[in-house]
Amino acid sequence: MQIEKKLDELGVILPPMAPPGAMYIPVRKLGNALFISGQVPMRDGKPLFTGKVGTERSIEYAQDAARICVENMLAAVKDFLGDLDLVANIIKLQVFVNSEVGFDKQHIVANAASQLLFDIFSDIGRHARTAVGTNQLPMDVTVEIEAIFEVKG
Amino acid sequence: MQIEKKLDELGVILPPMAPPGAMYIPVRKLGNALFISGQVPMRDGKPLFTGKVGTERSIEYAQDAARICVENMLAAVKDFLGDLDLVANIIKLQVFVNSEVGFDKQHIVANAASQLLFDIFSDIGRHARTAVGTNQLPMDVTVEIEAIFEVKG
Amino acid sequence: MQIEKKLDELGVILPPMAPPGAMYIPVRKLGNALFISGQVPMRDGKPLFTGKVGTERSIEYAQDAARICVENMLAAVKDFLGDLDLVANIIKLQVFVNSEVGFDKQHIVANAASQLLFDIFSDIGRHARTAVGTNQLPMDVTVEIEAIFEVKG
Repeated sequence: MQIEKKLDELGVILPPMAPPGAMYIPVRKLGNALFISGQVPMRDGKPLFTGKVGTERSIEYAQDAARICVENMLAAVKDFLGDLDLVANIIKLQVFVNSEVGFDKQHIVANAASQLLFDIFSDIGRHARTAVGTNQLPMDVTVEIEAIFEVKG
Repeated sequence: MQIEKKLDELGVILPPMAPPGAMYIPVRKLGNALFISGQVPMRDGKPLFTGKVGTERSIEYAQDAARICVENMLAAVKDFLGDLDLVANIIKLQVFVNSEVGFDKQHIVANAASQLLFDIFSDIGRHARTAVGTNQLPMDVTVEIEAIFEVKG
Repeated sequence: MQIEKKLDELGVILPPMAPPGAMYIPVRKLGNALFISGQVPMRDGKPLFTGKVGTERSIEYAQDAARICVENMLAAVKDFLGDLDLVANIIKLQVFVNSEVGFDKQHIVANAASQLLFDIFSDIGRHARTAVGTNQLPMDVTVEIEAIFEVKG
């Protein structure tokens, strides 16, 4: 219950696992690797953060969206594993930021997701990462994040 | 020959494996994981589905493109493995949809690919997935899909 | 020292490993797989190649950028492994090309990265690949490349 305790300390409340909004499953395991579907900033089946970063949406708005993606990711992993203490390492994030042409701080948006994972998981939360812009995301959400986690063997 | 039988039932005819149009190989294996190069809706060396979804191309057009990507993916895996019955699980798809700004149904486009894989592989075809928009794809194709499959050990 | 010898022959000088410009780590290992963070064409902490391919930047410019991404990738792997001869196989590249709408030769840009890896690693450098366009990359760099390598067991 180390990770649950940490979530409490940080005031992070995981939402109930959202059923996928389309024809896929949230998590697939191959060996010790968990492949986690692209997470979007939804709550209760509705997109909470939409629009493009630049003039329409601020970096701070997009960072809030990124943190919700991480919370949804952890809810999916908890649902799959039963216990977040079974996470051995966070391996990789791929962060897509819905961007206006001219906005080039996708890495700063992605930092909010990475920081939250470090805060929760400490050293095992340190991960490789790719952050890119995109001209459109599903339901016009502001951020989408997929991940690979390692589980204890 | 279970999967071949299923393809027959569904009327899916796999094309001959297309040689890559550039400097890469279609499939790379690492342990039991097959990493499959981004598949585009080509036939006989020519892009069959081009243009952006939105006003220029419809969702249905893009879904047809997504299904051709899956057929080319399975052709590549069959060429690599010799027999599609050696597929243990379909792990993950990443779907890029060539999108006009304002089109935000990338997940609906991606569903066509996911549905076809479920129809062919049943439960082992259930996968994690990320669907995003992009402002341009190679040769202006409408959809590009990369995948990770697990093979029997 | 086979790979170092090859780098010498080709006149490729790896830069010192660049510390990540944000909250992530350059390389994460899971089993025999190395997941390498998205590499951008930076040197000495500054982006060397910026802008979009199309009318603003040429294919050749973007290919030069792609080669710098590969050099930074190898610098990161060398720093992690200590010795590039421990690379067993290059498994996959994902190449994002900062593109104007209308530019659709992302695969030709990506070829420069793939060719350099083949030149250095010969057959074990042959990899699966996905190349896509994007409307924006961090710091407006022209190309970003992430990779999966296999290390000797």
